[in-house]
Amino acid sequence: MSDASTTHPALPSDAGARFASSARSVRTTAEPVESWLTDVARRSRMAVSIAPLTGLPNWYADPDTGDIRHRSGKFFTIHGLRVDLPGAPVPCWEQPIIDQPEIGTLGILAKEFDGVPHVLMQAKNEPGNVNGLQLSPTVQATRSNYTRVHGGRAVPYLEYFQDSPVHRLVTDVRQSEQGTWFFRKRNRNMVAETSDDVEVLDGFRWLSLAQVHRLLSVSDMVNMDTRTVLSCLPFTEVDPAGPGVDEFHTALARSTDARHGSRHHMDDILKWITDVRTAMDIHTDRVPLDLLTHWYNDGDRVRHVRDWFFDVIGVRVETVGREVSQWSQPILRPRAMGVVAFLVHRIDGVLHVLVHARAEPGYVDVAELAPTLQCTPATLAHLPESARPPLLDHVLNAPGDRIRFDAVQSEEGGRFYHARNRYLIVETDLGTAVEDQYPNYRWMTPHQLADLLRHSHYVNVQARSLLACLRSLHTPPPGR
Amino acid sequence: MSDASTTHPALPSDAGARFASSARSVRTTAEPVESWLTDVARRSRMAVSIAPLTGLPNWYADPDTGDIRHRSGKFFTIHGLRVDLPGAPVPCWEQPIIDQPEIGTLGILAKEFDGVPHVLMQAKNEPGNVNGLQLSPTVQATRSNYTRVHGGRAVPYLEYFQDSPVHRLVTDVRQSEQGTWFFRKRNRNMVAETSDDVEVLDGFRWLSLAQVHRLLSVSDMVNMDTRTVLSCLPFTEVDPAGPGVDEFHTALARSTDARHGSRHHMDDILKWITDVRTAMDIHTDRVPLDLLTHWYNDGDRVRHVRDWFFDVIGVRVETVGREVSQWSQPILRPRAMGVVAFLVHRIDGVLHVLVHARAEPGYVDVAELAPTLQCTPATLAHLPESARPPLLDHVLNAPGDRIRFDAVQSEEGGRFYHARNRYLIVETDLGTAVEDQYPNYRWMTPHQLADLLRHSHYVNVQARSLLACLRSLHTPPPGR
Repeated sequence: MSDASTTHPALPSDAGARFASSARSVRTTAEPVESWLTDVARRSRMAVSIAPLTGLPNWYADPDTGDIRHRSGKFFTIHGLRVDLPGAPVPCWEQPIIDQPEIGTLGILAKEFDGVPHVLMQAKNEPGNVNGLQLSPTVQATRSNYTRVHGGRAVPYLEYFQDSPVHRLVTDVRQSEQGTWFFRKRNRNMVAETSDDVEVLDGFRWLSLAQVHRLLSVSDMVNMDTRTVLSCLPFTEVDPAGPGVDEFHTALARSTDARHGSRHHMDDILKWITDVRTAMDIHTDRVPLDLLTHWYNDGDRVRHVRDWFFDVIGVRVETVGREVSQWSQPILRPRAMGVVAFLVHRIDGVLHVLVHARAEPGYVDVAELAPTLQCTPATLAHLPESARPPLLDHVLNAPGDRIRFDAVQSEEGGRFYHARNRYLIVETDLGTAVEDQYPNYRWMTPHQLADLLRHSHYVNVQARSLLACLRSLHTPPPGR
Repeated sequence: MSDASTTHPALPSDAGARFASSARSVRTTAEPVESWLTDVARRSRMAVSIAPLTGLPNWYADPDTGDIRHRSGKFFTIHGLRVDLPGAPVPCWEQPIIDQPEIGTLGILAKEFDGVPHVLMQAKNEPGNVNGLQLSPTVQATRSNYTRVHGGRAVPYLEYFQDSPVHRLVTDVRQSEQGTWFFRKRNRNMVAETSDDVEVLDGFRWLSLAQVHRLLSVSDMVNMDTRTVLSCLPFTEVDPAGPGVDEFHTALARSTDARHGSRHHMDDILKWITDVRTAMDIHTDRVPLDLLTHWYNDGDRVRHVRDWFFDVIGVRVETVGREVSQWSQPILRPRAMGVVAFLVHRIDGVLHVLVHARAEPGYVDVAELAPTLQCTPATLAHLPESARPPLLDHVLNAPGDRIRFDAVQSEEGGRFYHARNRYLIVETDLGTAVEDQYPNYRWMTPHQLADLLRHSHYVNVQARSLLACLRSLHTPPPGR
């Protein structure tokens, strides 16, 4: 009756250790990454100009609702949303939101060179990028892209993500994106490993994780899609010994390994998430864009009556070196820069991060684990005092020697125009009492976040970005 | 810098072994459960009569849409749904569906007696029950119940589930219910353990899992809510030795323990789920009940033009011994009995069940893991030949000695009228090749299902019911 096929022991593979080794692979290469990017930038051009929303080719405002749509019915729609969140500082509001039901593919191709995993990165421009090229995943495509709705060229390397047997996929999980700007958007975060000879096309380059990590400390250099895919990689530093490894880095290394303890058992974290999600009685209703109370389309853009929060503007794009040579599209432009921060703390020698179970209207399941702090300080002046997030001053007034990471990162330049956040990792002595004071906050280890990242709906995109930034601290800085 | 608080090793607690011991606790008790139920039934009455949907007190058909609503705005609404599922045998259809946004609590209170965990079960009647009382969780309450929208009595024992510290909760996870009848319904499945002296109210009784398990082999005796909560209990049989333990029961015991192998590593199962969910491009749109193409409200009931699938009817209820003494409500009445079955197979001495990643329009996230077979045979005659589910004949024609479990179970009697399914567990020799033939099917161990049941959105209510039935096979039958 028994079957001859092999069963698999429930053991972790060694992928986590191999990728952690790539984060320490700091050998210098013939051509520095920066000069390669400069070289690619010289040969690829993208001209972006702001254009009135009314009259964008192929886009129109639905006459019945005012919703902004593409004539093909594909890509995305911008409609209105009414949100009820009883008990919140702002218990109900209305806003425009992007509805993009297609699940896109964010894929990074990996391959070992001299025993060290490398990732194939793409120098890619997006219309919303503040600075042109950013380091992007190997593949970054919506279904409309790869089924060629706009008649563009084939997406290179897509075959590694469409036809791979499951065992060649290191990671394959759908994750949410900004829940205040997107309604239930999910992208598929994939890492495929190959031993093929891979032709490296113009604009692509193999990099070790160490090389990517060092670029994370440069503003607006590693794009959001790369950060989120990297956060879903298994990553376990089993041997933190080495020059320059102090107590902080030992605690950081331990925090990636399940064998070291965590303040809360995962079962208790899951029960806490159930409790928070049940208590937050969020309700959303789609409403026509034209009927939003405090927002209107003035022909040039969709704006808040007081110019708060964000606009939806139009852009015209002309490019050389990507799928099509010109297009126009609506794009969301935030009014100010945000702050995204993890407080971190060593508990029994293991680094923990303070996560916040945060409701956003676009999440599929009520709330996701967010950074300790995620806000736009300039917006707080428009909100009630109670909306001021906990620990804001603690983060912003941290002394310099407690700041472990500090760089401005861009959000996705395909949908957001010059959307930037200051990403901070700040060590604190606040300790565990903070959980009693703020019941929607918990200390968790990065390993626990990685464990939840095998599933959808748990860790929001800002926390994933910060997890990638935190992992960059495993890479020694240049000169060491 | 380090904190004095204790960190928790990432080890499983012993709850799984303790509850498995309760499943083997077959000591006879002073009063058999059956005679207790008979006694309770003698003292509690519920008279249920079918009534025209139009004119049910406190319920009305919305004049704009035909949607069926309660005047309070609470409880639930019945509206229309249009479903697009490209590539499916029926790629688009319309249907009525129940929308119940409130998250209810299904709570079982547990307590050790003589070192064996027992569960506090309730003999409870529901208007849709085919046979009156069924064994129900300690607490079974919607928010409308316990906030007393209908002015009823307080829900007993609710405090154990509302005020428990997280460490007294053995289980707390929101799970989906029927995705073809409910739109995004979730209930909170909770087990709370106490060492308090608990007053046992009339209609309640402490039972070992063994006692509940033996009642699972009796038709329509253990209600759906009990089955789903029990499926979320940790359950690990570490020592399968004992009289009557044959190869099947050894394989069954091993299948609850992560240390024994499984055909697929969990990471590969998760990647397979991502792949299936991405490929199934399901899309649903709410439509007014009045505008459904093949359905209409004839005043008595909402029906399909050909009397297929199900009706929505009205019932009037008069009762003694529950929160309120009389009410009326709409209720969904299926037209025929369904079949729900797991094929099971020993792979390297470990029992595996064949799960089916199945899309249903009411799921929050596209598809959930369903039993091998889940259908209503009488309905298949109305559908295209390609809609005939794989393995239907294999299950229905199984020889008697391969049928490990066979009992009719009721679905939830608060929303469904005489909704019954034949639950089957059938041993097969089909083996692992079946996965190549049917790519949306995978062999998994019950331990892996239990692991996924710590999360929402993975295992559907029929599979959870069957998992509870499978666990009942751990309990020796009477007379052994």
